[in-house]
Amino acid sequence: MRPGIDEWTMIVARRERRVEWGDCDPARVVFNPRFFEWFDAQTTLIFETVGLPKRDLLQRPDFAGFPLIETRARFHRAVHFGDLVAIESRIVTVRKSSFEVEHRLTNGGELSAEGFETRVWTMRDPNDSERIKSHPIPSDILARLGIEVGPRSA
Amino acid sequence: MRPGIDEWTMIVARRERRVEWGDCDPARVVFNPRFFEWFDAQTTLIFETVGLPKRDLLQRPDFAGFPLIETRARFHRAVHFGDLVAIESRIVTVRKSSFEVEHRLTNGGELSAEGFETRVWTMRDPNDSERIKSHPIPSDILARLGIEVGPRSA
Amino acid sequence: MRPGIDEWTMIVARRERRVEWGDCDPARVVFNPRFFEWFDAQTTLIFETVGLPKRDLLQRPDFAGFPLIETRARFHRAVHFGDLVAIESRIVTVRKSSFEVEHRLTNGGELSAEGFETRVWTMRDPNDSERIKSHPIPSDILARLGIEVGPRSA
Amino acid sequence: MRPGIDEWTMIVARRERRVEWGDCDPARVVFNPRFFEWFDAQTTLIFETVGLPKRDLLQRPDFAGFPLIETRARFHRAVHFGDLVAIESRIVTVRKSSFEVEHRLTNGGELSAEGFETRVWTMRDPNDSERIKSHPIPSDILARLGIEVGPRSA
Repeated sequence: MRPGIDEWTMIVARRERRVEWGDCDPARVVFNPRFFEWFDAQTTLIFETVGLPKRDLLQRPDFAGFPLIETRARFHRAVHFGDLVAIESRIVTVRKSSFEVEHRLTNGGELSAEGFETRVWTMRDPNDSERIKSHPIPSDILARLGIEVGPRSA
Repeated sequence: MRPGIDEWTMIVARRERRVEWGDCDPARVVFNPRFFEWFDAQTTLIFETVGLPKRDLLQRPDFAGFPLIETRARFHRAVHFGDLVAIESRIVTVRKSSFEVEHRLTNGGELSAEGFETRVWTMRDPNDSERIKSHPIPSDILARLGIEVGPRSA
Repeated sequence: MRPGIDEWTMIVARRERRVEWGDCDPARVVFNPRFFEWFDAQTTLIFETVGLPKRDLLQRPDFAGFPLIETRARFHRAVHFGDLVAIESRIVTVRKSSFEVEHRLTNGGELSAEGFETRVWTMRDPNDSERIKSHPIPSDILARLGIEVGPRSA
Repeated sequence: MRPGIDEWTMIVARRERRVEWGDCDPARVVFNPRFFEWFDAQTTLIFETVGLPKRDLLQRPDFAGFPLIETRARFHRAVHFGDLVAIESRIVTVRKSSFEVEHRLTNGGELSAEGFETRVWTMRDPNDSERIKSHPIPSDILARLGIEVGPRSA
């Protein structure tokens, strides 16, 4: 069977961040787009964690980024200037050409924000190098992520 | 009746933006956190459109910001460096102390991204000026937004 | 004579900006890196003003960006959330492969910040498409900028 | 003697950073305003290094930030997505109410960017809490920074 719906990996990418002055808005809390910057870096970190730095991936002909197609975040508690937060991220679902990522940001042990991403694997369009198109996640990538790959059903 | 669940306003805040070099990532498309910056500014623009600039609101004792508690975005088409986009934003739901905003970003007439925000009205906590707490949206604000305010049911 | 030292153009690119919540830091003033974002967009605007949008320039084989090699800014007065500022920018010096830009940001008519950039004209290195190298500013670009181009001395 | 012109400290704040996707522009190099974000965080780190986190400093009545009044940067080599850079920062000059900071960013051991800041020590204006004004750097701060403080000459 093809890497199925709702298979997920045990890989966790974890990083601590000190909240900087420039991360914060006049309310002295993290300005919400920063969380999305951090989540984006976390997804890259997941791949780096399994030996697939994005910079190397971009050398492959079958990879041109994993753009977001949908994202969502919930903010439970404000995060303030100077706080030391931790973000834990994991791929929770893998489909043929897309995957989902969850991010949990804790602050002093309390869950403060959560992020949910749906991303699509893309490659450069062979007919138009300016464009990208979705592409099945290559088997060797799945293997690195710990997804078992059986014979293709479709 | 109290400003009910799922009442919404007809106010539309619209703004055009030229996509700048610094808005884009190495894929030469808008880096996703920028959309959330733009959406944040759009929500402020809705209030400004009805004569309530956020800077003035912040002078009120019953306002200390409308922080996001949840947000979501869908990205339908990549937006490229140099594109001229339009964002239309409206408050689609008003509840006692919270409201929801929708943003539609079009690029050359095509819907390229959508944003959905749930925000809570807050005031400074009278017992701790360092903290904020949720607060019913004041009636005069509702009136400005075109929400009819009847006798309080609860 | 070759476009000389300290020739400058009369082209002025001017843009107004409303200072957004997300432009500001916890001191409720514009966080300094934002000024550099705005200055960067202004330099692009100068070229657009003379009919040379950067997106089109990037199609040329003799252009691969005009990266900063040095920049400087002076901050005279804080700029606050909600302020409406104007930025005026002009190329003040043109050399063989580089040029200098000045930006003046006023707030309610008062000079609040100044920026000074030295940028180099680059093209893609024909021997290594991953690299760029400095390149004389093409004559047709100079002409558009209003720089008189005589016979080349060197 | 009062902490003199051109006294400087031996404190060095050093931090490594992985260059993230969102730090880069379509040229796949760090977008210049990011360097200024990093430099800003570095200056805060200098104070933290000597036991003066900015968050704590902001509790003092004689501190309301050290805004930039002038800054300058030189960019020697482009810094690319995925690079691991190191930034070393130190206060190089201390005056009565201002100080200067230098930042050196190296990439694989090579100097890639330098930053120079002039910042002013401020406190809240006792006559107008919305405003700040410059203030002599307090002696205990100077002592922490390793600046010898003699009898005040002026």
